[in-house]
Amino acid sequence: MPASGPRRAQDVYAATLALLTEHGYDGLTIEGVAARSGVNKTTIYRWWPSKDALLGAALTDAGLLELTVPDTGSLREDLCALVEQILRLLTGRATGTVVTAVLGAATHRPELAGFTRAFFADRLRRERIVFERAAGRGELRPDADPKLVMDLLAGALWLRVLGRGETPRKASVRELVDTVLTGVTP
Amino acid sequence: MPASGPRRAQDVYAATLALLTEHGYDGLTIEGVAARSGVNKTTIYRWWPSKDALLGAALTDAGLLELTVPDTGSLREDLCALVEQILRLLTGRATGTVVTAVLGAATHRPELAGFTRAFFADRLRRERIVFERAAGRGELRPDADPKLVMDLLAGALWLRVLGRGETPRKASVRELVDTVLTGVTP
Repeated sequence: MPASGPRRAQDVYAATLALLTEHGYDGLTIEGVAARSGVNKTTIYRWWPSKDALLGAALTDAGLLELTVPDTGSLREDLCALVEQILRLLTGRATGTVVTAVLGAATHRPELAGFTRAFFADRLRRERIVFERAAGRGELRPDADPKLVMDLLAGALWLRVLGRGETPRKASVRELVDTVLTGVTP
Repeated sequence: MPASGPRRAQDVYAATLALLTEHGYDGLTIEGVAARSGVNKTTIYRWWPSKDALLGAALTDAGLLELTVPDTGSLREDLCALVEQILRLLTGRATGTVVTAVLGAATHRPELAGFTRAFFADRLRRERIVFERAAGRGELRPDADPKLVMDLLAGALWLRVLGRGETPRKASVRELVDTVLTGVTP
């Protein structure tokens, strides 16, 4: 919540995410948020000029998108921990619907797409230390690209959840990580 | 087009994809398709009971989603050819907008999600032969899972295009394939 934001920002954010979960992106309206939060529509518009600005603020504030950067001493365990967090984000009861709705809507909403791009860039920035530590321990080929590794791992989960409609089990995280670490050729 | 479908199905499909490209999923309406194709709204509803049924039929018919299964004699080249086709599908001028809009909308439209699930399952069924041939040539570890490999590769492209808003270059296809083939550990 911005320091200068309305005192009832938390109520507005909660109403925003609840409506998104219940009715999807298209069913989310500033009018609905006003009715649910009891905060005046004009007040909401004063602080967030659009539905997507409000949604971006709610997602940022909600802590739904937090990331704990692991430091287990092993690249394999660090990657498993990172990918398990992505799995929880995509499939968790509180976050799955929200994240899925936002990623879906972002394909045709430039402002929301800007938010998801910033989100992915921010994640990668914070994940890089995992690869630097692994390189220091000699666990990573010198030409390995951290972004490529994370895109493979996160992308596979994303495709399974959003494209194939699967709910990947935690065991599949290890299979994905092991494949990217060691490859599939004999 | 179903054998029993309306004679002007092609016009209806063309109008459907054009409206989807121009106005996105939410801007696609049966009314709009009727106006654009010159086919009566009642006729359209008689053959496709919903917007999503019509969209699924248009996508299937349009050949946009065709796949050429490569047989180059090398797993690496076969995978590059498969992944380049996915890249063209996601970023091509005729297909990019359509595919992006459909994947986005499918996150909250069960009928459309059924279509995308069937699409991914169909692709995998046809891609398996690439892995069988590679196994026969001794190019693939016996425990390698074709679905996992394709999910990593397609997922990475998908995340880059839809999540990061990038337009991956063809060179990145080789980087992705080589990483999945040989891994990132020394």
